[in-house]
Amino acid sequence: MRSISRILLLTAAFFLGPLVAVHAQAPPALTQVPGYYRIQLGQFEITAIYDGTIYLKTKLLHNTKPEDLDRLLARMFVGTPAMQTAVNAYLINTGEHLVLVDAGAAKLFGPNLGHVVDNMTASGYDPAQIDTVIITHMHGDHVGGLRDQEGKPLFPQAAILVSQAENDYWLSEKTAAAAPEEARPFFKMAHDAAAPYLTTGQWKTFVEGAVLVPGIKAVKAPGHTPGHTAYAVESAGQKLLIWGDIVHAHAVQFAKPDISIDFDTDQKQAIVTRKAIMQEMAASQSLVAGMHLPFPGIGHVRAEGKGHYAWVPVEFTPLGQADTKK
Amino acid sequence: MRSISRILLLTAAFFLGPLVAVHAQAPPALTQVPGYYRIQLGQFEITAIYDGTIYLKTKLLHNTKPEDLDRLLARMFVGTPAMQTAVNAYLINTGEHLVLVDAGAAKLFGPNLGHVVDNMTASGYDPAQIDTVIITHMHGDHVGGLRDQEGKPLFPQAAILVSQAENDYWLSEKTAAAAPEEARPFFKMAHDAAAPYLTTGQWKTFVEGAVLVPGIKAVKAPGHTPGHTAYAVESAGQKLLIWGDIVHAHAVQFAKPDISIDFDTDQKQAIVTRKAIMQEMAASQSLVAGMHLPFPGIGHVRAEGKGHYAWVPVEFTPLGQADTKK
Repeated sequence: MRSISRILLLTAAFFLGPLVAVHAQAPPALTQVPGYYRIQLGQFEITAIYDGTIYLKTKLLHNTKPEDLDRLLARMFVGTPAMQTAVNAYLINTGEHLVLVDAGAAKLFGPNLGHVVDNMTASGYDPAQIDTVIITHMHGDHVGGLRDQEGKPLFPQAAILVSQAENDYWLSEKTAAAAPEEARPFFKMAHDAAAPYLTTGQWKTFVEGAVLVPGIKAVKAPGHTPGHTAYAVESAGQKLLIWGDIVHAHAVQFAKPDISIDFDTDQKQAIVTRKAIMQEMAASQSLVAGMHLPFPGIGHVRAEGKGHYAWVPVEFTPLGQADTKK
Repeated sequence: MRSISRILLLTAAFFLGPLVAVHAQAPPALTQVPGYYRIQLGQFEITAIYDGTIYLKTKLLHNTKPEDLDRLLARMFVGTPAMQTAVNAYLINTGEHLVLVDAGAAKLFGPNLGHVVDNMTASGYDPAQIDTVIITHMHGDHVGGLRDQEGKPLFPQAAILVSQAENDYWLSEKTAAAAPEEARPFFKMAHDAAAPYLTTGQWKTFVEGAVLVPGIKAVKAPGHTPGHTAYAVESAGQKLLIWGDIVHAHAVQFAKPDISIDFDTDQKQAIVTRKAIMQEMAASQSLVAGMHLPFPGIGHVRAEGKGHYAWVPVEFTPLGQADTKK
């Protein structure tokens, strides 16, 4: 090593200032990495699938003051007045079933969404392989992606499972008729998504608490919508709660779960449910996945004093490698 | 809509209990998404490239008590006694230059590392296209990846730029000879990485403060190693500091920057530098990228009271879409 050292020091050129300009030998790649991310949960493989981004105006948030909101958003470097908000879906391969949880927005909410099929394909799966689709609730950004651009079923082999309460609310003629004018489009989106599967007989309802496939159980989580449902996934003792729309504005609602959003059908119940689930997740240290948490939207909830919480996303980890407990 | 509603409700089947068991029509995909992630910084395209994971024992950390450590790790859901720690590199396409910052560990630190070339290729670039490699410091997990498995230069077209102080320390015969036995392998790794490029004349040194290519400036950040250098990247008014090894244990060192790690050559200076840079980054709200922050390792530093900080990773965002300020 000693003789090498001497040679190295003598031959090291001294570099001063910019290199002679040469043009980069490659144009910008311009492509983002595909929008999927995997974790192993016991024997189950979970794939987070990115549908895209929606920008939600901060004025949609209730139970807060502008100065509090600005402070909470700034500390998480989230833009205002429109918060970047992910739309995620989750694919679960249990070995026996290939289950999709929610289907994204398709093109119902603009060009930044509708990438579930692209990203699912990039991740190695095809919509025709899915045998079960379970729906957290029937808002357009969760069920829009059930249909293709011609309005035909995108999941020809799948049973589409939705809670009885959710089914009854959104597909009720009476409720739709009684809804205020601005809510009508949401009823139409829900109808449109369900219609082709009702025709084929693939649309099925379940009661809360049902085990939908072995290892995936429906958990009542009402407020955001009447039949809003979380899904408790468990394999080999490892647990993940896919909690749907418990949080829309992560920068705000973990710190202050009292803050609700305009889309919550029952604001008070949504707050009660959010607080109960956050408390339970923080206490149990269960993994959580959320449809509007920053992609991949998988992580843990930490209690931060009484009634306040923080979101801790999982660290990027290759598959088949020891986890952080190693 | 009304007549459709009635039909839908009548035809909705009621689902009870598990579906009849069918085997999933697809085996588990078993692959993780490729380890790259892009952001646009003004006119520059920045690609974070994942080299892999190293597990660092918590006993490597100094200036702390076990009970404090356990609490800090637990609140970030980081495993103990071995902390999952990313090794990242960054590729910058300035339009004029294609610049790689650090080259990963190759196979110097086990099978979980050495993926810079794979992931760079997946991201759309080839090592032969790179015209400039800049090195934050000459530890093996940053320079090991300069060579291929036969020990030949992996970057045949690139100037390899390293600070004069770093060059002089690691390639000094005297310093290597005076180093304690356990430090010798680090000197050998640095020598081995530099040797083929010294032979070809591609190895070049610079003085602190030098502009290496337009938009990328060397910033003195000593302590971790004598010539440890951060890189200030700026395009069209947008700023990113690639800070190298200012942080190894994110769960611990943002909250308590006084905690140092065994690898810091000058523990006191490393702490002084870490505190100064964190303070500056929190105040300026500049983007930061770090070689051992959870991949992609890009985000912001938030001040949390006097002398404490928190890490806020960027949200996954497609390229060519409005950022969070929209």
